[in-house]
Amino acid sequence: MDYPFLSRIDTPDDLRKFPETDLRAISDDVREYLIDTITKVGGHFGAGLGTVELTVALHYVFNTPHDKIVWDTGHQAYPHKILTGRKGLLHTIRQKDGLSGFLKRSESTYDDFGAGHATTSISAALGMAAARDQLKQDYKVVAVIGDGAMTGGLAYEAMNNCGVLKSDILVVLNDNNMSIAPNVWALSNYFSELFASPAGRRLRDGIVGMTERMDNLGDRIRSLAHRIEGGMKAVITPGMLFEALGFKYFGPVNGHNTAQLVKMLRGIREMRGPILLHTITQKGKGYGPAERDKQFLHAIGKVDKITGKAVASAPPPTPAPPTYQKVFGEALVEICSTNPKVVGITAAMPDGTGLDIVQKHFPDRIYDVGIAEGHGVTFAAGLATQGVVPVVAIYSSFLQRAFDHIAHDVALQHLHVVFALDRSGLVGADGPTHHGVLDLGYLRLIQGMVVMAPKDEQELRDMLWTAIHSYTAGPISIRYPRGSSVGVPIRPMTSIDIGKSETLRPGKDVAIVAIGNMVSKAMAAAEMLERDGISAEVVNARFVKPLDTSMIDDLARRIGRIVTVEDGQRQGGFGSAVAEYVVQHHRGVDIRIHGIDDVYVDHGTQDELYVDVELDAPGIARVTRDFLADSVMRSVIS
Amino acid sequence: MDYPFLSRIDTPDDLRKFPETDLRAISDDVREYLIDTITKVGGHFGAGLGTVELTVALHYVFNTPHDKIVWDTGHQAYPHKILTGRKGLLHTIRQKDGLSGFLKRSESTYDDFGAGHATTSISAALGMAAARDQLKQDYKVVAVIGDGAMTGGLAYEAMNNCGVLKSDILVVLNDNNMSIAPNVWALSNYFSELFASPAGRRLRDGIVGMTERMDNLGDRIRSLAHRIEGGMKAVITPGMLFEALGFKYFGPVNGHNTAQLVKMLRGIREMRGPILLHTITQKGKGYGPAERDKQFLHAIGKVDKITGKAVASAPPPTPAPPTYQKVFGEALVEICSTNPKVVGITAAMPDGTGLDIVQKHFPDRIYDVGIAEGHGVTFAAGLATQGVVPVVAIYSSFLQRAFDHIAHDVALQHLHVVFALDRSGLVGADGPTHHGVLDLGYLRLIQGMVVMAPKDEQELRDMLWTAIHSYTAGPISIRYPRGSSVGVPIRPMTSIDIGKSETLRPGKDVAIVAIGNMVSKAMAAAEMLERDGISAEVVNARFVKPLDTSMIDDLARRIGRIVTVEDGQRQGGFGSAVAEYVVQHHRGVDIRIHGIDDVYVDHGTQDELYVDVELDAPGIARVTRDFLADSVMRSVIS
Repeated sequence: MDYPFLSRIDTPDDLRKFPETDLRAISDDVREYLIDTITKVGGHFGAGLGTVELTVALHYVFNTPHDKIVWDTGHQAYPHKILTGRKGLLHTIRQKDGLSGFLKRSESTYDDFGAGHATTSISAALGMAAARDQLKQDYKVVAVIGDGAMTGGLAYEAMNNCGVLKSDILVVLNDNNMSIAPNVWALSNYFSELFASPAGRRLRDGIVGMTERMDNLGDRIRSLAHRIEGGMKAVITPGMLFEALGFKYFGPVNGHNTAQLVKMLRGIREMRGPILLHTITQKGKGYGPAERDKQFLHAIGKVDKITGKAVASAPPPTPAPPTYQKVFGEALVEICSTNPKVVGITAAMPDGTGLDIVQKHFPDRIYDVGIAEGHGVTFAAGLATQGVVPVVAIYSSFLQRAFDHIAHDVALQHLHVVFALDRSGLVGADGPTHHGVLDLGYLRLIQGMVVMAPKDEQELRDMLWTAIHSYTAGPISIRYPRGSSVGVPIRPMTSIDIGKSETLRPGKDVAIVAIGNMVSKAMAAAEMLERDGISAEVVNARFVKPLDTSMIDDLARRIGRIVTVEDGQRQGGFGSAVAEYVVQHHRGVDIRIHGIDDVYVDHGTQDELYVDVELDAPGIARVTRDFLADSVMRSVIS
Repeated sequence: MDYPFLSRIDTPDDLRKFPETDLRAISDDVREYLIDTITKVGGHFGAGLGTVELTVALHYVFNTPHDKIVWDTGHQAYPHKILTGRKGLLHTIRQKDGLSGFLKRSESTYDDFGAGHATTSISAALGMAAARDQLKQDYKVVAVIGDGAMTGGLAYEAMNNCGVLKSDILVVLNDNNMSIAPNVWALSNYFSELFASPAGRRLRDGIVGMTERMDNLGDRIRSLAHRIEGGMKAVITPGMLFEALGFKYFGPVNGHNTAQLVKMLRGIREMRGPILLHTITQKGKGYGPAERDKQFLHAIGKVDKITGKAVASAPPPTPAPPTYQKVFGEALVEICSTNPKVVGITAAMPDGTGLDIVQKHFPDRIYDVGIAEGHGVTFAAGLATQGVVPVVAIYSSFLQRAFDHIAHDVALQHLHVVFALDRSGLVGADGPTHHGVLDLGYLRLIQGMVVMAPKDEQELRDMLWTAIHSYTAGPISIRYPRGSSVGVPIRPMTSIDIGKSETLRPGKDVAIVAIGNMVSKAMAAAEMLERDGISAEVVNARFVKPLDTSMIDDLARRIGRIVTVEDGQRQGGFGSAVAEYVVQHHRGVDIRIHGIDDVYVDHGTQDELYVDVELDAPGIARVTRDFLADSVMRSVIS
């Protein structure tokens, strides 16, 4: 029988009926199921393989969902989904209408808090603990956080607050040593390694013995000795940081040993105050190809289970154009080669942003600040005060974390910092936590900020060149989507006039003014409309701020009907900027702001989602056609 | 002669010509000058009195402005202003066209980085250090940060990054023990106190001795022993946290002893890598009234220098209405009395927000999370998942730090969290870092967020009631200004219909649709216009989102001329929401969006600033009159 244990488990209640001695076998089943499913459908993989035993132990010891478990960022929570009633749906993960790749409150009562952005778990868990205490209830609260997420300042703010509130809360540090901030964890590795040796162990015993003998020094000193012993423990374990913040520290324990985990968790469950359990896990644990090959550690497509080789799918009819990320990275290499003042900043995403390409050529000129977008931006402001030109490359939705740092530290001081917002618009399978649909709005708000979006990869290159070399008066931003570019030929980079749009197609019935990624779709839409006898002008807006108002004036006078198109929220974005201008300067102009409604868009492929929100070419054509019909009707009536 | 030493010092170069033995006398002069000036003109006081010696020592040892000093939040930097060419202007501080109350790059070459929001200094200083290393320059970089600011996650992100980069940087921790997160610093106090006793000292000596004897254990263990000694030092000093993050820790030293400071700084100046110097200072040091009375510690008005008593100014003709903060606090007390599920959250500002009033009645129901707005919001999200209703009371400009936490942790999960944004609009003397002028824009962007602003204190009460009791579908926000309310009678709280405006004054020539604080000014403007024969309708919009579109429809059809008025940036805000609606649903309607231009507004009194930006009653009247004239002209022409 396949999965002899897991086949009898649908929920944690089922799990808790098994004797403790079966937990290893159950874990093996969960891992096998995970491997079998994800190699077939693709998905985030390494993190989940590392948390199988931890997940089994947590649901075994804690009475979920009465007790709450908050998983920090959902990648590590696939085993949790398997054990909480969603086993049969795992093969739908990250697909449209299927399971979310992250935790999601609306998906399961076992998902106590959703998170696609890192480092939120301790804050949320502390909130739950505080609610419990306010309402005099008695459940346990556990946060599970990776060492990478621990580089985010939110974890520190939350832990400090735990230490002050002294709430009963357990933080499980899932330390898979993949952190992008080696310093914090280098210390822990150093000690772990040393104390594995007999000499190291003797030394530790000696120190602990000495502190125990201090117990005869009177009350005050006894208390001090106790503290020092605690301190010693902090020194001779990696708990220093956590003890300083008011946590009782336990570990490190092997996160793949269910017996040890259960014993530890049972003991801890009865303790009071903030407790940190440090577990050491291995990303990709138990699956050969993932253990051997770093590229398996994050996410995979469909692969052969045994060899780990990608399952060949039909080759695309034409080779896909390079990704925007690759184009960005290569353009920045070109610029760095001739301009020694340019550096790049990433918040733990060198590969995702394309800065890894620059890193290969100029290792000293890329700063990886950890999952710390706020610091990354203020750090950039510091660099800019001294004449360096920092290019801050952060995913659009993650840069939301640094909104104030952009406004208060960069823009207010008119510092020349270049923002490259990757993964703008709808990102696809990662879903609503990752969609970059607020950026045109939040960047446009900021005083003096220049906001650009390129229509294709060459324009991205030109905008990057412009941002670094031509415009130095203050902050300037470029936002571009995830994935393949348009496929135009690459030319040498040139400068673009700030605030100047470009008319790509003349027309007389209606003007479609599109920004960024939407421009090529607007062009395709215009061709569809032409077949219906509608003559649509298409403008590549290029700039949301400063807006090309002479272009708007011209369209208003000449055509009088404008559809704006953006892959972002309709309110406050590009179309909003056009609306602000038109209502104050023109009369009798009809406008349709086409963008995303005031809701969160779910996950699915990028193409599926753009069809859903009518931001594909047929959708744009349809919206334009309807708008035109309405507008003509209004003219007839009035 | 007054100030015998300071009178000979204009710049740090002058200071550095004095022998070290004069530094104490110089410090005395600086303190005297500070007291003499600030008691005359008012201003932030306690923090500066605490940093006199530190400032003198830093400018004496470091070669400013070649070497860079980054002060975290400017309150502590008044002595720095005195010593860097601005002595003669100190009496203009925080006044219109006078010195800024904070550091300001455009004000002095000695102001290396401006900051009104806390916790930015280490990030900025690290950026400068990185720039220095990139460009092969050789200046020193110093960040001076208070213990309060150390509760912000940005400090942790920056220190972690310092540890990774191993840059040469000095962080001076100005520990005046006023931190709002006692836990981190409670530890340090505990140890300081203990080691002051002879028994404690013997114990420490014993431990250090023991670790020294470990030196004969072979290479690997020797290195370990060295580490342990470092660790011990961390345990027996308050440096634990910093050593864990990769800093060399020195101190604590007495921050009022210039000789000790100079000796320490000279030693440290030659060292490599990230270094933390822990100085203990006393807020209000050297001025009796400030040492004795907590209220002197932050900021004062004009006082008698000797007694510290406020200098009587002419009493206002009528007593000022209560502040919005007081009204808010008292309303929340009323609500908490009957609803046990309501709690308040502040980020280190219980007094400023009025939550101190609630704290007095319900000490367990107010959470002070430290200077940690992001954590405060995600913590609130956690509370809301369990049925508690958190009221997050944070100044508008500080809440910018939590933009992503509002979007990703609260709104995406449709959690019922109430946001009370205090100090919205122009705040006055604190200037551009503190103006709350982006909030209508950034809140409106967020999917599903309700955005309200009350016209007066009773409406604030009603909106708070509504937000807590009537609307539970998701996040809801109320923004209101700093300072005095309008002065209307207080009634019992009632519910307001979500998305409903209120017409306050009928009119036929033009409609003024105002939000929040601008409503009463719009009413006054309408009266002025009436005297000119212009009939202006005035609408209290109440909601920016959802917008009252039926009101807009009515105005568009009936009057066709609308001026929107908001005390925020013009782009993306309230008027922008009206514009978006009108261009898509009406033709031939003229609109003027009246708000703040796309620039940063400087400091001054609130009244002065509102006159400058034409958001006082005469300004609104003038703008409306001009708009009407333009609009009529356009009608004639077309």
